[in-house]
Amino acid sequence: MAEYQVTFIPDQVSVTVCKGTNLLEAAREAGIDIGSPCGGNGTCGKCAVRITAGSFKAENGVHLSEELRSAGYVLACTVCVEDDLTVEVPVQSRLMKQKVVLTEKDDGERAYFARHKMNPVCRKYRLTLPKPDLADSMNDLDRVRMALKREHDIAEAGITLDCLRTLPRVIREGDFEITVTVARFNGNNEIIAVEPGRSDKPAYGVAVDIGTTTVVAVLLDTETGDIVDQEGSYNKQASCGSDVISRIIYAEESAGGLEFLQRAAVETVNGLLEAILDRNGLAGSDVSAMVCGGNTVMTHLFMGVTPSWLRLEPYVPAAVDFPHVRAGKLGIAINPDAPVITIPSVASYVGGDITAGVFAIVPQDSDSLNLFIDIGTNGELVLGGGEWLVTCSCSAGPAFEGSGISCGMRAMDGAIDWIEIDPESLKASYRVIGGGKPLGICGSGLIYSLSEMLEAGIIDRAGKFREPNGSGRVRMTDDGPEYLLVDGAESGTGRDIVITEGDVKNLLRAKGAIFAGIRTMLAQVQLDIADIGSVYIAGGFGKYINITDAVKIGLLPDLPHDKYRYVGNSCIKGATLGLLSIEALDEMKELAGRMTYLELSIGNQFMDEFISATFIPHTDLSLFPSLG
Amino acid sequence: MAEYQVTFIPDQVSVTVCKGTNLLEAAREAGIDIGSPCGGNGTCGKCAVRITAGSFKAENGVHLSEELRSAGYVLACTVCVEDDLTVEVPVQSRLMKQKVVLTEKDDGERAYFARHKMNPVCRKYRLTLPKPDLADSMNDLDRVRMALKREHDIAEAGITLDCLRTLPRVIREGDFEITVTVARFNGNNEIIAVEPGRSDKPAYGVAVDIGTTTVVAVLLDTETGDIVDQEGSYNKQASCGSDVISRIIYAEESAGGLEFLQRAAVETVNGLLEAILDRNGLAGSDVSAMVCGGNTVMTHLFMGVTPSWLRLEPYVPAAVDFPHVRAGKLGIAINPDAPVITIPSVASYVGGDITAGVFAIVPQDSDSLNLFIDIGTNGELVLGGGEWLVTCSCSAGPAFEGSGISCGMRAMDGAIDWIEIDPESLKASYRVIGGGKPLGICGSGLIYSLSEMLEAGIIDRAGKFREPNGSGRVRMTDDGPEYLLVDGAESGTGRDIVITEGDVKNLLRAKGAIFAGIRTMLAQVQLDIADIGSVYIAGGFGKYINITDAVKIGLLPDLPHDKYRYVGNSCIKGATLGLLSIEALDEMKELAGRMTYLELSIGNQFMDEFISATFIPHTDLSLFPSLG
Repeated sequence: MAEYQVTFIPDQVSVTVCKGTNLLEAAREAGIDIGSPCGGNGTCGKCAVRITAGSFKAENGVHLSEELRSAGYVLACTVCVEDDLTVEVPVQSRLMKQKVVLTEKDDGERAYFARHKMNPVCRKYRLTLPKPDLADSMNDLDRVRMALKREHDIAEAGITLDCLRTLPRVIREGDFEITVTVARFNGNNEIIAVEPGRSDKPAYGVAVDIGTTTVVAVLLDTETGDIVDQEGSYNKQASCGSDVISRIIYAEESAGGLEFLQRAAVETVNGLLEAILDRNGLAGSDVSAMVCGGNTVMTHLFMGVTPSWLRLEPYVPAAVDFPHVRAGKLGIAINPDAPVITIPSVASYVGGDITAGVFAIVPQDSDSLNLFIDIGTNGELVLGGGEWLVTCSCSAGPAFEGSGISCGMRAMDGAIDWIEIDPESLKASYRVIGGGKPLGICGSGLIYSLSEMLEAGIIDRAGKFREPNGSGRVRMTDDGPEYLLVDGAESGTGRDIVITEGDVKNLLRAKGAIFAGIRTMLAQVQLDIADIGSVYIAGGFGKYINITDAVKIGLLPDLPHDKYRYVGNSCIKGATLGLLSIEALDEMKELAGRMTYLELSIGNQFMDEFISATFIPHTDLSLFPSLG
Repeated sequence: MAEYQVTFIPDQVSVTVCKGTNLLEAAREAGIDIGSPCGGNGTCGKCAVRITAGSFKAENGVHLSEELRSAGYVLACTVCVEDDLTVEVPVQSRLMKQKVVLTEKDDGERAYFARHKMNPVCRKYRLTLPKPDLADSMNDLDRVRMALKREHDIAEAGITLDCLRTLPRVIREGDFEITVTVARFNGNNEIIAVEPGRSDKPAYGVAVDIGTTTVVAVLLDTETGDIVDQEGSYNKQASCGSDVISRIIYAEESAGGLEFLQRAAVETVNGLLEAILDRNGLAGSDVSAMVCGGNTVMTHLFMGVTPSWLRLEPYVPAAVDFPHVRAGKLGIAINPDAPVITIPSVASYVGGDITAGVFAIVPQDSDSLNLFIDIGTNGELVLGGGEWLVTCSCSAGPAFEGSGISCGMRAMDGAIDWIEIDPESLKASYRVIGGGKPLGICGSGLIYSLSEMLEAGIIDRAGKFREPNGSGRVRMTDDGPEYLLVDGAESGTGRDIVITEGDVKNLLRAKGAIFAGIRTMLAQVQLDIADIGSVYIAGGFGKYINITDAVKIGLLPDLPHDKYRYVGNSCIKGATLGLLSIEALDEMKELAGRMTYLELSIGNQFMDEFISATFIPHTDLSLFPSLG
């Protein structure tokens, strides 16, 4: 079959592909990460590139603006390679390193270890072995086991075959001084590394949050429990779709799709690890355990298990509690025998990230009613306190992460995160993350937009655009009305930054789904909004929400602000606790089993609540007394 | 580097090797198994070949008879390839398929399962799963686990990642009928195979005896406990030396020696499995567990663990109880996730084969004093009853397996296994296994030789040859006197079959070591030969021993013949029990820990006993009252 060379600029990376290869695939092969929230279906319009040499056909349809089209842009996902091509990939089409919410040793962790002993998943023990003689010719392995028992009260430690193979030489190289790394695997202690002499390094472990959009890794010294370093970046799977449903479809429908997504997740984690290890002068083999949390789809993909039945009624996961796996089996670049432990999920759309977050954040012994909200690529809610916990997932979609919004983007440099609209001129003041010219609008900017556009009379409570006044900021296009937030002349892309009526609808659906989820859960347990004692807002996005405006648009319930608490990346906090405490892992497993999953698609209640909640703030204003 | 082609005939197999490669190595690479009891040191004279084309240098020294040398034979281990060669490998230099003592479901096994439930290491369960709906969206894995618990009371089954990866499709392919194979791994139940529908095959397991000389594999239906088929053959490691010490030296001193020996053991097992599976229309993946027993060195080599410190004082094994390992990790061609479980050894020279044999054969609850003797490539002894067991290894050497004896061979077709010498003519009558012309003498033939040569006055009680009479059967050579058992004209090789004074010395040392071991153990517990209630003779060789003659030469204690019992391959019986009963595995582990190992090299007792026992039958004739 004919082959062609595709060169990507300004990277100057070339790749040879078969005739007919999709240009987005070619970019993936070349290691050029192009954003493709729709998973390559030609509908999101985000993978615009300019082909500067070679002949091609593209079907850009309605999803590429006239402006871009006339500037020579095409959607990469609609081009099949049938010639040698040179392809310019503009900055706004690229997946970029973004600000991720990292973690710090905080109250939750301190509180946990005030009540519990640290008992990490991996640990080093430095041993002095009695030397054998004819009267004591005990074998090497039992000699090590006896010392572990005698000096550290570790009973019944197994050993991996690779360690046993090196054990005799290592013992004698260290003249019967030896350091062993013991990890917990499927409930058993197991020696997974042996070093001669007394090692001066601790056993390191890594806690990982595998988000749909963002992945965060935290390296811990499991002897002290201290954070050594951390790193975050976008999930390399993002080139196959921005939400879990597009990823599932990619896994099913692309040849080798599941394997590609599994590798992409592993490469993302390995990339973070490499950065951390390099900075700290460590090797992969120094890391002896990994505990990770992710939503149910991410966990399936990370493990290479088909998520197909997660998107088909009755939405059945392959597993919620995955087996412990060796790092080498998955391709994680740490000690290949190190255990990789995933925190158990609750159901198809409430994952281990929520289990971890609730475990780390929500007081388990309080009598007050707690609400835990994680607004990420999905919106997951947990309601409860003391004995019971109810949880649900309201497919809010990734609108608040900027996806499905014409000028939406994630909270990174160049994103507008605050807006104020002058009621006269309808001109907007705004703030840009990192300063500089704006590239788009992130979640918090979108919340401000809604409340400001409503107040300025640009939209009504149903999200419909009103008649344009003479300001020229509200205008009609072929796709309907839109509000001009930033002129192309002022923006970083040279293009106008706008909010369309379609964008507003998407945002109202997203915020409506979350509020309706809260109301449906409350109804299920016959409680009211006023009964809620504390609200924990988790997730990277949560950090940027302004409560006043989120209540104003009806995203969050109208409660005194002191009941709200931002908790940042709660998944990584839970994963950290799990890494430092085997008991915490057991408790998270128990917690996942104890949460009652509410399937919102059963019955009409959610749909009724959802329709009412797609108004600003709601059809029932009595639910928002403070706005009266 | 220059390369040459070596062609072996009559096989017509060619291999290309670098200049300087040892010819024995080249044969190994070509898959031609040449016997090399000394491990390629040029001292055993067994690897004679004829080079029919190409130039070469050989150093045959004293170890190749003048007769062979003049016929153009050279020792392969002394030739380095420096030209293209054609090499004829005669039948007597080849390792051959031999008669091995296989097993049958016998008293021991029936007795065990009369008292214990069968609880095999692997088992298939056929499950009907309730179909999920919105009200029951339990994940696939827990759905299977619940059915295992409900229908078969199997709690807490884990699953391998590979099985989990196929589980969702397999469940739906079988329309929620599924067959799972559960194996025991490190104390946990684990699903290691999933099939759609209700499988009509049982779970198969394989019990293996990894002997230094011979390997036997038995395939079992773990549902019924029935033997499906069995197969035995020589251990492919034999080309690296016939006894454990030569194997250890080969592992240490040859480049990649340990890896070669590990692979050779695995290939031997795989060869047996292939034969069995082919005959029965089964695939490797149908076999779900392996339990094996071997001596301590064989176990180390099979696992790829260095045995170096086993041969250096204080003789320390790397391990006596090896970790459970996946078949795929070792290269065993069954289900790659199947557990491979080795029966624990007692000490460096009392291995899992002895643990297995004693467990299967010696009554654990008897008050009588039992003696268990395994004469194989080594001689291991166990003495005890009821509460206590003492064990030792008397490095008898492989003389009774025909090794180190000029015309010795193993008990296979062509071996002389019975001899009677006419006291007048000194001519021998003999019997040949399989009929046909004799090729050499096996262990039982050697025992008869000693007693017959003594009775005929050819040797004295110290094993020294007497003056030759006029028969011409006893003659002098450069290497000392020898007895002509079979004329070259009558033999299958065309060469004389003789017994030399050196052979007699080797045999006396071997039998002396065993008898001295028995006496030393008895002295240790202050008991006498007469106190022994039962003697169990295990091992392939045991089957061919004639008790009268073995007592006559002082190999076995002088006890009433009804106290003796041949138990055949007791190792495979123990491995079979372990495969069919997890409890038996636990008991064998406990048993291995309970046996007291007696190191014969400590103190003078053994050496004193040994010297007395190198006479026929002994210096102290009062120990053999029946011979009086």
